[in-house]
This record gives sequence, C-alpha cells and structure tokens, in this order.
Amino acid sequence: MTVDLTNVFQQIDGDFDNLKELLREAVAIQSVSGDPSKRDETIHMIHWMKEKLEQIGTTCELADLGTQELEGKTVKLPPVLLGTLGTDSAKKTLLVYGHLDVQPAAKSDGWDTEPFELVEKDGKLFGRGSSDDKGPVLCWLHAIRAAQKNNIELPVNIKFCFEGMEESGSVGLPELLEREKDRFLAGVDFVCISDSYWLGTKKPCLTYGLRGICSFFVEVTGIKQDLHSGVFGGVIHEPLQDLMWVMAQLTTVDNRIRIPGLYDQVAPLSAAEEKTYDDIEFDVTEFRESVGASKLPTEDKKTLLLRRWREPSLAFHGIEGAFYGPGEKTVIPSKVIGKFSIRIVPDMDPETVNRLTVEYLNKVWAERGSPNTFKPRPGHSAKPWVVDVNDSNFLAGARAMKRVHGVEPDRIREGCSIPITLTFQELTGKSVLLLPLGAADDMAHSQNEKNNKWNYVEGVKTLLAYIMELGSA
Amino acid sequence: MTVDLTNVFQQIDGDFDNLKELLREAVAIQSVSGDPSKRDETIHMIHWMKEKLEQIGTTCELADLGTQELEGKTVKLPPVLLGTLGTDSAKKTLLVYGHLDVQPAAKSDGWDTEPFELVEKDGKLFGRGSSDDKGPVLCWLHAIRAAQKNNIELPVNIKFCFEGMEESGSVGLPELLEREKDRFLAGVDFVCISDSYWLGTKKPCLTYGLRGICSFFVEVTGIKQDLHSGVFGGVIHEPLQDLMWVMAQLTTVDNRIRIPGLYDQVAPLSAAEEKTYDDIEFDVTEFRESVGASKLPTEDKKTLLLRRWREPSLAFHGIEGAFYGPGEKTVIPSKVIGKFSIRIVPDMDPETVNRLTVEYLNKVWAERGSPNTFKPRPGHSAKPWVVDVNDSNFLAGARAMKRVHGVEPDRIREGCSIPITLTFQELTGKSVLLLPLGAADDMAHSQNEKNNKWNYVEGVKTLLAYIMELGSA
Repeated sequence: MTVDLTNVFQQIDGDFDNLKELLREAVAIQSVSGDPSKRDETIHMIHWMKEKLEQIGTTCELADLGTQELEGKTVKLPPVLLGTLGTDSAKKTLLVYGHLDVQPAAKSDGWDTEPFELVEKDGKLFGRGSSDDKGPVLCWLHAIRAAQKNNIELPVNIKFCFEGMEESGSVGLPELLEREKDRFLAGVDFVCISDSYWLGTKKPCLTYGLRGICSFFVEVTGIKQDLHSGVFGGVIHEPLQDLMWVMAQLTTVDNRIRIPGLYDQVAPLSAAEEKTYDDIEFDVTEFRESVGASKLPTEDKKTLLLRRWREPSLAFHGIEGAFYGPGEKTVIPSKVIGKFSIRIVPDMDPETVNRLTVEYLNKVWAERGSPNTFKPRPGHSAKPWVVDVNDSNFLAGARAMKRVHGVEPDRIREGCSIPITLTFQELTGKSVLLLPLGAADDMAHSQNEKNNKWNYVEGVKTLLAYIMELGSA
Repeated sequence: MTVDLTNVFQQIDGDFDNLKELLREAVAIQSVSGDPSKRDETIHMIHWMKEKLEQIGTTCELADLGTQELEGKTVKLPPVLLGTLGTDSAKKTLLVYGHLDVQPAAKSDGWDTEPFELVEKDGKLFGRGSSDDKGPVLCWLHAIRAAQKNNIELPVNIKFCFEGMEESGSVGLPELLEREKDRFLAGVDFVCISDSYWLGTKKPCLTYGLRGICSFFVEVTGIKQDLHSGVFGGVIHEPLQDLMWVMAQLTTVDNRIRIPGLYDQVAPLSAAEEKTYDDIEFDVTEFRESVGASKLPTEDKKTLLLRRWREPSLAFHGIEGAFYGPGEKTVIPSKVIGKFSIRIVPDMDPETVNRLTVEYLNKVWAERGSPNTFKPRPGHSAKPWVVDVNDSNFLAGARAMKRVHGVEPDRIREGCSIPITLTFQELTGKSVLLLPLGAADDMAHSQNEKNNKWNYVEGVKTLLAYIMELGSA
C-alpha cells in the first residue's frame, strides 16, 4: 500500500513560489481575534480559507457562533469552518484542526519588518501567523493539492475544523463541537493538530502532552480617577504600589510558585517516565542562547524539560491601567489590573488551581493591610492533556516523519496549552496526534515570528506522508 | 490710585461667551508636548497665542530653542513666546509666565467627553488644558482686554513668557532665560505664575512653596525578545517579576519612602512654621471624598498637609514594555521599564536624592539575586522652592484676591513642581508670586480635567485686580 512519494516531494520543492504566495496572502489578513477592531478581518480570513478548501473539492459549511462581549462592545464571533473531503464509507476518517487567527502584532513592538507583510530573508519567512498557525494550515492544503495533481488517491476521508478564536480562548468552539458530536464528529477515526513546535531546530518530534492554563486578573482600585503625583503623592494608598507588592509575592526569584498546595497536585514521576527524558535530544546551551538569557533557573537538561512540560509555571504578562508609554507621565493610576497565568499539568485541575490561587492572593492582601479595593479573579482556563505514545495514529505520524526526515522523531511534551485537544479526544473518543511542523525558534506570540522555508516545505511533505500512512494505520 | 473695577467686573461676567469661545479654540489645539506626533500642534499653539497677544498691542518675538531627541526622532522644540506690553520707564515691570502645552489625554483613558473638545456641563468647562494651563493664560489676555476696553491705564509694563514644553520638563527654557538675563529679563520687578491650584474648592490662596521632583527609570532585561509563556514559562528569570519585586521595596503600604537617608535631608519644622498650619482652611473629609479613597495614610489635617507640601513622597506611574491592553496576552515581556518619581522639599537636593535612590535600588537588586540586567537611572529633576509670604508682590496678590473674593487668602504650599519658578527667582533676583486661579478638584494631568466657569471668570477679575494693585506695590 506504500505509495512512492519521491517525485511528488520533488514537485513540492519546486513549487515553493506558489506555497509562499499563498502564505503571503494569508499573513496579510490581520486576523487578530483579541482585537475587536480587527474582527472583520478575522471573519474574512475564515472565508478566504473556505474558498481555498472548496478549490480542492471540499464541501464546506460555516458554523455560526453568535456574538461575544469584547471591551464593552458586542461583536460577531468568527464562524468555524467545517469541511468534508471524501465520504467513502470504506475509508477511515481523519479530522484536521487548525486556527486562522493570530496574536496581536505591531512593528512598534520591536519587529524588524511589518508583521503583516510576509518577508523572506536568510531562508526564513517572517510574518505574524507564518508559523502559528497559518503556515501549518496551508501545509494541509498544499499536501492534498500535491496528491491530487499526481492522481494519488487519498486513503482516508478528511474533515477540517478551522477556527478563528484560538488565540482568544476558542470562545464558542467547545460548545459547537459538543453540538456536532453526533453529526460532523461522527465517524472520525483520527484527529491531527499541527499547532505546536519541535523541541529544537533540527530534529522532528511528536507531542504526547500539553500543559493546561489558568489565567488571572488582579484588580486594585481605591481612588476614583488618576491623580497628579505632585498634588496627591504621599497622602494616598497607591493602587499600583499595592498591585506590584502582591504580584511580587507569587513567585521566587527562580520563578518557583509560592502558592501553597500547587505543586502537591502534580502527578508523581515514575522511574520509567523519568528514564524517557534521557534520550531526548535537547541542548540546554543552545536553548539558553536562543532566548538570550545569561543564566537559567536550572541548566540541568532533565530538570529543565520537566519544568517546561511536567510542572506548573507562573508567568507575569503585564498591568492594565498604568502609564505604559515612553518617557514620563507624573500620574498616579487609579485602577490597575495585573495579568498573570499559571500553566498546569496532570493531575492539576483548573477549579482547584483557581481556588488555591485566589485564596493565596486574598491571604497576602490581608497581610498587606491596604484600605484599597482588591479583586482577584480567574480568567479562562484549560485542562492539561497527555496520551499514549504507542497508538496507531501516533505511529503513523512517526513513520511519516521518518519518511521525510530520515530519523525517528523524539517523543516530547509541550509547555503551552491547546485546550481543544482534550475536547476532541473526549468527544470523538479517538486518538489525537500533535504533529509539530515548526522549529523551536519560530517565536510564536512574539516579535519577528517566522517559519523556516525548509520547515514549511518539509511540513507539506510530512502531512502528505502522514495522510498516506494513515491508510495502513 | 485705586481704580473702581465694579463696572469692569460686571462687563467680564457678561462677556462669558467670548471667554469660553477662546478657551474652546485653545483646548482644540492638541499641544501635547510629550508626544512627538503632536509636536506640530504644540508649535501651532504658540503661534496662535502670539496672534492673540499682538491683538492687544503686545510686541512679540519667538525664541527658537532648536531640536530635541524624542523617542529616537529629532524633533523641533516649540519656540518660547516672549511678549512686551508697555515700555514706560516710569512704571515697574511685571513678568507673567504660563505654559501652552498639555499632558496626554485620550477618551479611552476614561474621559466622559472628548478631551480636546471643550464641553460645558453643570457650571464646569471640561477639556485638556482648560485649567492646566491654557485657562489661566487666557485669563491674562481677557484681563488686559477688559482694561483696554474701559480705557483703564495699566500701572505696570507687562512682559509675557509662554512656553510649550512645561509638561515635558521645560526643555531649553532655563538656558534661554539664562541668555535673556540682561535683555528680556532686565528691569523685571515682579514675576507672577498662575499654574497651581487652590487648596480646596471655595477659598482662594497664595502659594509660597513648591516641591521639586526627581524622576526615575528602572530597566530590567534578560531575554532577547518577548516569549510565549507556555513554551518558556518556568525556565527563565522574568524581567517583569524582578521589576515588580524591586519597585515593591521602595515604599511602605502607607506610602512612606524606604530609601535610607531621604527624610534626613528635610529642613526641620520650627514651632512658628508649624503654627501657621493651624489656621489653614482644609477639610480632610472633603479631600478624602474628592479623591474617592475609603481611608488615607493619615487623616490628621496638619500631618496630611505637611506630607503633601513639606515632606518627600514617592509615586509609581507605570511600566513600559509589558502587556497593557485589555484582556489576556500570554506573553513574557523581555524588557520592562518601571517609572516612578520622588517629590522633594527643602533642604533636599536632586543630586543627593538621585544618588541615594540609585544606591538603594542597586542594594535591593543585589539582594534579589537575579541574573537579569538591571539599569536604574534618574530622569529629569527640579529643585524645591519656598519664599517669604510678606513681600510686596505677595501682598499685592493678597489684596487682589480679597478685592474679588472678599476674604483674605490662605498662605499655602503645593505638592507639585514648577521648576521654572526658582529659575525666574534666581535670574531676576525678584519676588515670584504663585497666584492660583483653579479649584483643587480641577484634575490637572488626569481624566476629565475641568475649569469651573466661576473660577475662570473670577480668575480674569483677580488678574486684573492684581495688575492694578501692583501700581501701589
């Protein structure tokens, strides 16, 4: 049943200009789901992709998700693109998930180029969404096109579920999938998501675990509006002063979490599992240099990987309501909201993490003794996910990677969260494979996000090989 | 020599529509000196005022200050408007200072109305600059116009010095005044500045002291760019985490400064000076309610006023480089800059305050033990100012206020800083009077800045009365 793909792979190499042009078009659509002023572009992005899927013969529908409240406005949610390519009852069915929205980006954030213009430089394709997740979504399209061009029959039916709200908590998607359990999701045998990264920059890997997340907002108020620091400085309790003090109680200098009980919930590490970390190819020095740090809280390979994948972490994102511009503004902000999030792992559950965190915040606030008003509250949350690395879907992915890259992929976990993974697993009852295509230094969510030209092209081949391997899975 | 101003005062009351229209025009010019994109408007504001001064017979010149570096760009500085009205050598000469630039403002900061559109509501004129300091500057214009309309000869020559950089540290002005010491500033007998506020909302006052300021930037870096908090959370030393911890070491919950040696520099309070605080009309409850606080660090009238006027204070303004928008962004910021400032009083000097503060910051940073890069640095600074409440200029101001308001004004200090006050005093060797026209709740630098219709109109009368009183000073 194994089809020789040598010629097709060469064709894909030769088709780079077309692959790039489509990515350029996609990146240019500013589908920032978190920004209400960009909501029309986010919706447009879904329609753009629908047209592309229809061109390869997919039957598409747009599932309406209604509206949401965002920054005080009621805005339309982007519809979810559901596509069906092939309905042969003799074949198994693969469900592909991807997202078409992106994180915010502006040149002034420190990008070297305009974030929404795809720029090729030194073998890299720079642009917001080039790697997270427009590039991988387009790899599916290119892979199927390549098969069709060569009259290669796909051994599986394919369903697509592409959303436009992943970067903003996938609002509405879990409920939609719940409603579609016995219709669109019926008959799905495998699920595949390409929305994570290799552990390094050279060796491919498959991902068998993801951390969940609990995000938090800590609001401190106490004066009715911003005040002049000369006139009022020294005679009021400043909300920002309180907020920074409270936030500083959450972690140690080495970024360990000080919330009592949090680490107690982490599943014990068996000797067998610990052993698997020995063989993983990971260079701590390369990692440290790639982030530009002079020193890391730990530089032991195993401890570092365990902290990234298998332990909770707490990150501070910023403060809303304080002066954030360049230069000076001698103001006392009246209402400030601190933002942080905790990545969670098995066996932590969001409810307990939320409760312990809010309890701890309230406890340190009581110690603070400020008369200001303190409102800690949980934001969105997602459970962690972990699976068996030896199921047929996982093994098909491994064979595909070996076919393209010539090496057995590492089995890794990821520190980040793709909450919908667990939803697909629970609703279909089938295996979900995370098949990363991008390199570790792609800088998703950050300045100068890129997709290596090589990863993009090999990604197309990998997905095609995976589809073909599913024929014997 | 006392001219009866009763009829003129009535005329001024009747002229409100014209007074308001001119303020509307001035507020509409977005002369935000701290924003390079608004520099043209700031320059335009100076030209607009030049035309108004010329209409009342003033000979004007624009003193060029060259350029400055702002946010990496070289931008032209607004010229300083120097005006001369009357050169009668038999008369004494009053120098009037004011500023035509404003603090940043946007409706999205929490204004109820557009900040650059003057809106009259409930006897208040809302708009950025309505009180700080376009309103008071226009009061001079209206006062002189009223005298001219009634053929009242001014008993003093008047010189004007109006700048466009006060909200951004009066860049270039001290050097200009130094150069003008023996020309434009020659022969000045009195200086008057209307750029401060009443202590309350009902009783007028004269200001005999101002705090100085030392502003600070605290930069923490350590990773080369913003990182995804899922992928990197837990295995790096976060700059924002360090910054908040360091900032939290600067003050106590009651906003007392923890920098060693700082309070030691404050001039001792004599029993006689302390006694003057007994008579000052100040309602702590009204003050607390006006800021909207549930409790203040001190609610004792004298202690509170001493802390506002006669003791240093430290205020936190914000953080540059972290996520500041609404909602969530799961990013780890790579470079964050904390902003705070210390108001200083006699006998503190900026050099010592800067040294002690940076030493303390470095000491707590060493205690922190983070491998990140820490760069604390002083920003702009200004010395405090205090004068004799019994000189002739001061007494003329007091008589003018009594004439308009029927009561003896309180003698107060101010917590804020007008650094140029000290420069005028040193260069002219003459008395500088701070003659506040606005109410304590005008919300300069804040959202919903306003000037009471009543204060604006009475301000015109007060300045006219003051000019006339200087004839016998």
